[in-house]
Amino acid sequence: MATLQDLGVSAFINILGAFVFLLLFAVLRIQPINDRVYFPKLYIAGKRAADHRGARRAINLNLCTYFKFLSWVPGALRMTQTELIHHAGLDSAVYLRIYTLGLKIFLPVMVVALLVLIPVNVSGGTLLNLRKDVMFSDIDKLSISNVSPGSNRFFIHLLMAYVFTFWTCFMLYKEYSNVAFMRLHFLASQKRSADQFTVIVRNIPRVSSHSTSETVDEFFRRNHPDHYLGQQAVYNANRYAKLVKQKERLQNWLDYYQLKFERHPEKRPTGRTGCFGFYGRQVDQIDYHRARISELDKRIASERQRVLNDPKAIMPVSFVTFDSRWGAVVCAQTQQSKNPTQWLTNWAPEPRDVYWQNLAIPFFSLSIRKFLISIAVFALVFFYMIPIAFVQSLANLEGIERVAPFLRPVIEVKVVKSFLQGFLPGLALKLFLYILPTVLMIMSKVEGYVSLSSLERRTASKYYYFMLVNVFLGSIIAGTAFEQLDSFFHDPPSQIPRTIGVAVPMKATFFMTYIMVDGWAGIANEILRVKPLVIYHLKNMFIVKTERDRERAMDPRSISLGENLPSLQLYFLLGLVYAVVTPILLPFIIVFFAFAYLVYRHQIINVYNQEYESAAAFWPQVHSRIIASLLISHVTLFGLMSTMKAAYSTPLLIFLPLLTIWFHKYCKSRFEPAFRKYPLEEAMEKDRMEHASEPSLNLKTYLANAYLHPIFQMFEQEDQKEEATIEVRIDKSEHQQQQQHVRSSHSQYEEETSAQTHCHHEERTSSQYQYQYQHQYEYQHEETHMRSEQSPPHFVYHPGVEH
Amino acid sequence: MATLQDLGVSAFINILGAFVFLLLFAVLRIQPINDRVYFPKLYIAGKRAADHRGARRAINLNLCTYFKFLSWVPGALRMTQTELIHHAGLDSAVYLRIYTLGLKIFLPVMVVALLVLIPVNVSGGTLLNLRKDVMFSDIDKLSISNVSPGSNRFFIHLLMAYVFTFWTCFMLYKEYSNVAFMRLHFLASQKRSADQFTVIVRNIPRVSSHSTSETVDEFFRRNHPDHYLGQQAVYNANRYAKLVKQKERLQNWLDYYQLKFERHPEKRPTGRTGCFGFYGRQVDQIDYHRARISELDKRIASERQRVLNDPKAIMPVSFVTFDSRWGAVVCAQTQQSKNPTQWLTNWAPEPRDVYWQNLAIPFFSLSIRKFLISIAVFALVFFYMIPIAFVQSLANLEGIERVAPFLRPVIEVKVVKSFLQGFLPGLALKLFLYILPTVLMIMSKVEGYVSLSSLERRTASKYYYFMLVNVFLGSIIAGTAFEQLDSFFHDPPSQIPRTIGVAVPMKATFFMTYIMVDGWAGIANEILRVKPLVIYHLKNMFIVKTERDRERAMDPRSISLGENLPSLQLYFLLGLVYAVVTPILLPFIIVFFAFAYLVYRHQIINVYNQEYESAAAFWPQVHSRIIASLLISHVTLFGLMSTMKAAYSTPLLIFLPLLTIWFHKYCKSRFEPAFRKYPLEEAMEKDRMEHASEPSLNLKTYLANAYLHPIFQMFEQEDQKEEATIEVRIDKSEHQQQQQHVRSSHSQYEEETSAQTHCHHEERTSSQYQYQYQHQYEYQHEETHMRSEQSPPHFVYHPGVEH
Repeated sequence: MATLQDLGVSAFINILGAFVFLLLFAVLRIQPINDRVYFPKLYIAGKRAADHRGARRAINLNLCTYFKFLSWVPGALRMTQTELIHHAGLDSAVYLRIYTLGLKIFLPVMVVALLVLIPVNVSGGTLLNLRKDVMFSDIDKLSISNVSPGSNRFFIHLLMAYVFTFWTCFMLYKEYSNVAFMRLHFLASQKRSADQFTVIVRNIPRVSSHSTSETVDEFFRRNHPDHYLGQQAVYNANRYAKLVKQKERLQNWLDYYQLKFERHPEKRPTGRTGCFGFYGRQVDQIDYHRARISELDKRIASERQRVLNDPKAIMPVSFVTFDSRWGAVVCAQTQQSKNPTQWLTNWAPEPRDVYWQNLAIPFFSLSIRKFLISIAVFALVFFYMIPIAFVQSLANLEGIERVAPFLRPVIEVKVVKSFLQGFLPGLALKLFLYILPTVLMIMSKVEGYVSLSSLERRTASKYYYFMLVNVFLGSIIAGTAFEQLDSFFHDPPSQIPRTIGVAVPMKATFFMTYIMVDGWAGIANEILRVKPLVIYHLKNMFIVKTERDRERAMDPRSISLGENLPSLQLYFLLGLVYAVVTPILLPFIIVFFAFAYLVYRHQIINVYNQEYESAAAFWPQVHSRIIASLLISHVTLFGLMSTMKAAYSTPLLIFLPLLTIWFHKYCKSRFEPAFRKYPLEEAMEKDRMEHASEPSLNLKTYLANAYLHPIFQMFEQEDQKEEATIEVRIDKSEHQQQQQHVRSSHSQYEEETSAQTHCHHEERTSSQYQYQYQHQYEYQHEETHMRSEQSPPHFVYHPGVEH
Repeated sequence: MATLQDLGVSAFINILGAFVFLLLFAVLRIQPINDRVYFPKLYIAGKRAADHRGARRAINLNLCTYFKFLSWVPGALRMTQTELIHHAGLDSAVYLRIYTLGLKIFLPVMVVALLVLIPVNVSGGTLLNLRKDVMFSDIDKLSISNVSPGSNRFFIHLLMAYVFTFWTCFMLYKEYSNVAFMRLHFLASQKRSADQFTVIVRNIPRVSSHSTSETVDEFFRRNHPDHYLGQQAVYNANRYAKLVKQKERLQNWLDYYQLKFERHPEKRPTGRTGCFGFYGRQVDQIDYHRARISELDKRIASERQRVLNDPKAIMPVSFVTFDSRWGAVVCAQTQQSKNPTQWLTNWAPEPRDVYWQNLAIPFFSLSIRKFLISIAVFALVFFYMIPIAFVQSLANLEGIERVAPFLRPVIEVKVVKSFLQGFLPGLALKLFLYILPTVLMIMSKVEGYVSLSSLERRTASKYYYFMLVNVFLGSIIAGTAFEQLDSFFHDPPSQIPRTIGVAVPMKATFFMTYIMVDGWAGIANEILRVKPLVIYHLKNMFIVKTERDRERAMDPRSISLGENLPSLQLYFLLGLVYAVVTPILLPFIIVFFAFAYLVYRHQIINVYNQEYESAAAFWPQVHSRIIASLLISHVTLFGLMSTMKAAYSTPLLIFLPLLTIWFHKYCKSRFEPAFRKYPLEEAMEKDRMEHASEPSLNLKTYLANAYLHPIFQMFEQEDQKEEATIEVRIDKSEHQQQQQHVRSSHSQYEEETSAQTHCHHEERTSSQYQYQYQHQYEYQHEETHMRSEQSPPHFVYHPGVEH
């Protein structure tokens, strides 16, 4: 049990830590050399030119700027929400609303709780008189534990539970309604984009004498005769993409060695070919890499030939386009075939958002994968300690000495030995927690979701379960998750809320410390961007040769919803659980939400560049997790009350979870369809407006190749680079305005640097989609498609369905 | 613990009882006077004329026929499934498949279980040696209880559990696939009907300056410009229908008194006006009822005027028709409006199936109703003993004596007193169980479902929960459901399967008796139709004057899915739970399924006349309940094994429920859409075929007034009776062929008797829909609609959207 003083010390340390981080950030961010680490989004959005503040000068010598170490705050707050949506997309803007929602819920709750509950608890005074200095700390005097069992004061706590629940639900309802409105408004005000007209069709059945494209074409011409426009076949280019990636890695090394050679022309770099340069024959690195790249080039070319010509490389998936949004909406929302496992249609994710590897998974396999992964997640959540304990048992000092006997003298030094013995067991756990999000993401990928946005959402929900069980329950009930599971089976259900309820007030100080360490310090760390900073400077040092390389070394990343949503949801959980029990925890949470809001607003404006735009598709998850937190808080209170001899509480409390569940169901049916479906009314209106403003629009040209696998677009691009450059400039200026808030970062710097050398063009990874840029000029050079191997494969149009 | 002998006696009594019922049935069914009780469906289907077997002769004097008392069996089996679908509809045919599914699952299981498990159990022999005659009966020697704890023989039981589960899943899969195919085939081969082109639209928002019809019209013309045809507004005629019903009741009494007067012309019937004729002034009954009917006629006419002219009587619901099935399917499956609680579209139930009273419930109210009813069902299932105990405490002898002191001398007689004391407490419970299905149906109606078929399905699932908790668990774990609930909360979860598992083998004899009493004897009772028999003869005696009245007195009823499905599902549950534990129970279940199959086949062919056709929409429920039974059987086995010291069973058994859950999920996604949605492919094909065969079809005329409230159709009908008669005869002959298997019973006898007196036309209840008959001639008499008050209200067509 920590005393108030302990807590004060902890708070001081953490505030100091955060302050140091902020100070460091203030210093580092004004150094021109770090400009691309701290303001990449501005570069991408074209708001900052390459020579901003004279990038040549590496160090800022203007002393004045050093004193304004919080000067980033007003800048972060200045942008309005509308501008923010334009600048960073709806996902980011709505993500920030989670923080404001936290503030909106917890600020009034805190005021009421501090004014009402703290006096009630303090004057309850059992602990004050009874066993004064043994078990209970000062914090406990402010909590519900201080009220004597059987007291009538618990009525006030019950009343507060009702008030807080109603307030939370009210705010949730308002926010859900707001976000749903913002989403619909965003979709409605979005300019024409390919995904509005496109439906992804999966599990296309194989018809013996027909190719997949023919089957698709026939099916949709028959069943959507009035609106079907065309289709884009999907190629299985996974092996091809792998080769391209391999080449890119080699190219990086080649760049590195060439730079090294340029700097020290006296000595050609040499090395061994084997793993990590430990063994293998001695070679000249530049020649060796050049040879391997040219060899890979050949393999890539032949693989590409194979993909384009082999009918087996066409996957039973297709992007089908329609001549109106109405037609696409209808096709996406209806069942096509008698067999509901075939011809599955869904609204296509935007091209940037497609996860190409998963498109071809058949339905049956999908259902098995989901089943297996849900078992695996369950096992991971509850039994993750088993493999870690196993690794820990291996990774002891004797084990290391056996594997690497040459380390023995070092290990046997007493100081080192004791350090290692304390450190090693924790290492496996730390490592596991570090790779956990990646593992969960891989699991989600195995599950077979076809868009990056849904992958992130699935990862987030898996991570949430892990946090709930291992951080929240694991901290409250001592013992591993496995032991908890065991006790869930062998204790009566009425005992479980009781166990949790009793432990909750006792763990308040722990969670306060947790909020300070993980929340406050974590956020300060977030703004400093240590890892990208280091990586950027390493890249800058070793492989950056041109300004364009520097662009590429800049790694803005995007908000990692998979990790951030669950931890945010954990804070909501803590706030709601402790609001009635130990309200003194609430200020800590408020500080976290406020501080995190500022930092993320700054980061979203200046740093992050979203990979895709899902139009706030994650909100239903946020909403239902907060509802789940409410329910958990009710169960906790239930258990706590039952140990406090407040027998009247049972009938009074039972309505709280019931009403909450009803509220959730109502919200679900009221708002969730806005996140899953696109209403016909909206589609029709947008079609009509567009038709009125642009009656002669050629949609076919517009939609052509929007959903071509990015790897093929790369080739097109490379081949047509020179001839296309001029047209692109002209075309894009118009296109740019239309697509401002959804466009990919890459189309932007493509434009700026397209006249430069293009020796790096092959290096793009498959996640860099230049689709908008691409389809703009591809069809202005029809003649190039006559060359069979470079033509965009299988784009089938039917003169019969011309409109 | 019953011995084999006790069970034998019980079986003998029940078999004898069933035999007596069958004998009675054999005698009664060949009496011409009962012909309309035992063969109403044949009358309705036109396969038996009114003078069949000389109905004037009341008693069958041909002695030969008395000896062939099982002669109905071959007749019941002779019809093929296709004929059955034609004769009685798909619902009935698929209902019978539940019984054959039971046979298909349990026959092989029984054979294997008897051959493998019985020898294993018998030779296990613990009980044979140990405490020979105390606790365990002969039945137990054949069950798993006979195997000594910790024996390796349990491996065989585990293996059998896997084999039985796989076999059950295999049969379920095959059957689901069959039924889904039958449903799609049935829908595809169905001739043109109004529901194929119609979508029910609920929660139409009120627009201030527009009428509902205008709003609907504008909305659909805007959002479905290519396919929208027209709409049928829905009137709030609930009060009107109530008046009509009231008049019908009075008319019945008038008929009764008139008949009485005709038979005894010397004495005019008189009586008091008050309740049950106990008080009030003395009146001449014929004059009194005539006066009241004519008064009601006036009120009905004015109410009708009000409904037709008051814009507030138009409900925010509409039946919207499209010019193709494709258009209707698209509208039914897509989201129309930004606000997902408005403009809710669903595939319209067929007109006979519509539950008019629930159409106008707004979305918010609906969500509250569902929530409240689910709480009410929970309370009903677990706490139903509380009100019954309360009634029982009131309904004691002292209470009766206090209320009715004049009964005191009778009650105080010793024999009567002891009889009442034994009888009264049970009476409340019996009464409750008797009205339970009605109560559950009322609950489902409050929930707000809009079709009779969904109401029956919801009632079935509520009844299932009641049976599961109170019959299955209630018999296994002694005590009321409330006590069970209490123990569920206070026992550890691992204890519950154990408690059930231990008790299951001990209750085997109880359930065998249950199957014999409820199953065998119940089915024999079903074929005898005691209640309809009595009611028919009472009606025949008191109010039947003409042959048409006799038609009306005939009450074929329909299969009550709400009661029958849950009890069938209970038998599946018993069979699956006992298959491994006490396989000797299986033959009892097999006998039940076989016997019930025969009886229901006979009843469906000769008696039942389905009110509506839902095309086997109940199958997904049947499927998932059997899956639930499988899971319950796994849990039981789990608990049983854990008490048998078979520790290895836990890891071996855990996969069984997991695999079953996966199987269920797969089946759900593979087949359920076929029961919820109508694939576009099918709709398009049917449209195309129809267009090819009847290019000049006028759909508007065809669809006009199909969904007019039945109460208005009645009026039309009455007014136009004479003029329409001839055309109807001509028209219907063609129409009849088209609609043979979906047509309403009433259109049939309408035809036969239309030339007769029509003084009873007003008496139809709102559940008797003559829609098909109606819309056929309504539009051949366009001129009658010029008379404003008789015109079908608000049928809006737009010349602009002519196709």
